[in-house]
Amino acid sequence: MPTEPQADGPPQASLPRWLTDDEQRAWRAYIQLAQLLMRQLDRDLHPFGLSMHDYEILVELSEAPRNRLRMTELADRTAQSRSRLSHQISRMESRGLVVREGCEGDKRGTFTVLTDHGGQVIREVAPHHVASVRRHFIDQLAADGRTALTDACEPVVDRLRKTRDRD
Amino acid sequence: MPTEPQADGPPQASLPRWLTDDEQRAWRAYIQLAQLLMRQLDRDLHPFGLSMHDYEILVELSEAPRNRLRMTELADRTAQSRSRLSHQISRMESRGLVVREGCEGDKRGTFTVLTDHGGQVIREVAPHHVASVRRHFIDQLAADGRTALTDACEPVVDRLRKTRDRD
Repeated sequence: MPTEPQADGPPQASLPRWLTDDEQRAWRAYIQLAQLLMRQLDRDLHPFGLSMHDYEILVELSEAPRNRLRMTELADRTAQSRSRLSHQISRMESRGLVVREGCEGDKRGTFTVLTDHGGQVIREVAPHHVASVRRHFIDQLAADGRTALTDACEPVVDRLRKTRDRD
Repeated sequence: MPTEPQADGPPQASLPRWLTDDEQRAWRAYIQLAQLLMRQLDRDLHPFGLSMHDYEILVELSEAPRNRLRMTELADRTAQSRSRLSHQISRMESRGLVVREGCEGDKRGTFTVLTDHGGQVIREVAPHHVASVRRHFIDQLAADGRTALTDACEPVVDRLRKTRDRD
């Protein structure tokens, strides 16, 4: 995705530098991969009636103690806004994948709990999803490319988490 | 995001290998960056009343001949499904950023056209968006990390495009 529009006149002096060609190339490669990969993984989950967002929530709950997480914690782990997550959970609840439980004596919020059916779904779908992640991403990277990608991404992730927690 | 649930019993023999620790680390770093970065860029666009999807569409139109693209072409460039894009364009049309125009004698579909107001918005917002891309992503990568990321991502992008066009 380009970031510089064909604007009339030079950018204002107080405003930032446009990306150089190398930077633009890195940004396009990254953002196009993000878009295409998410869409492909979504398509591969579609026959199972799940989206990537559904899948991610089911995995988080399946790994949590007693298969339950506070909405605030789930929003944090899935990097979603609470309002968007709330709609998502409502849709998943109507399909019997999760239930909401109030937490007595604790004002911090509601728990989302994986149902037996949700647990069964994630166990059935996970092998197919891993195959999809391998086919479209992991197995396409050479070992040194994979290491380089990890080393490049991890510090940026750490910084984004700090930015998010601070704001 | 983890991909292996705490399932009972071994995965079925005909189904794929789970990710190794190194692969899992690369996948988590990548997917977490994708989620956190998109959310941060969205947050930074929020004061301008735009989402990342809005922004991307405005840029594509601003770079197209006569500031117009067929819906099919726009869906292709933004890696979105046509139904999702159609909802998106309706919302943008109601805000005066774009208009739809039928194309007489051509059954292949409708054009989406950038309005003068849409053009003004993208020129105003672009410098802020580039600053956001720099702050949260490009300027966080060392030059060799940026090159490594580009080299790792580009072949995967090419392959995903071919997969999408074939299916």
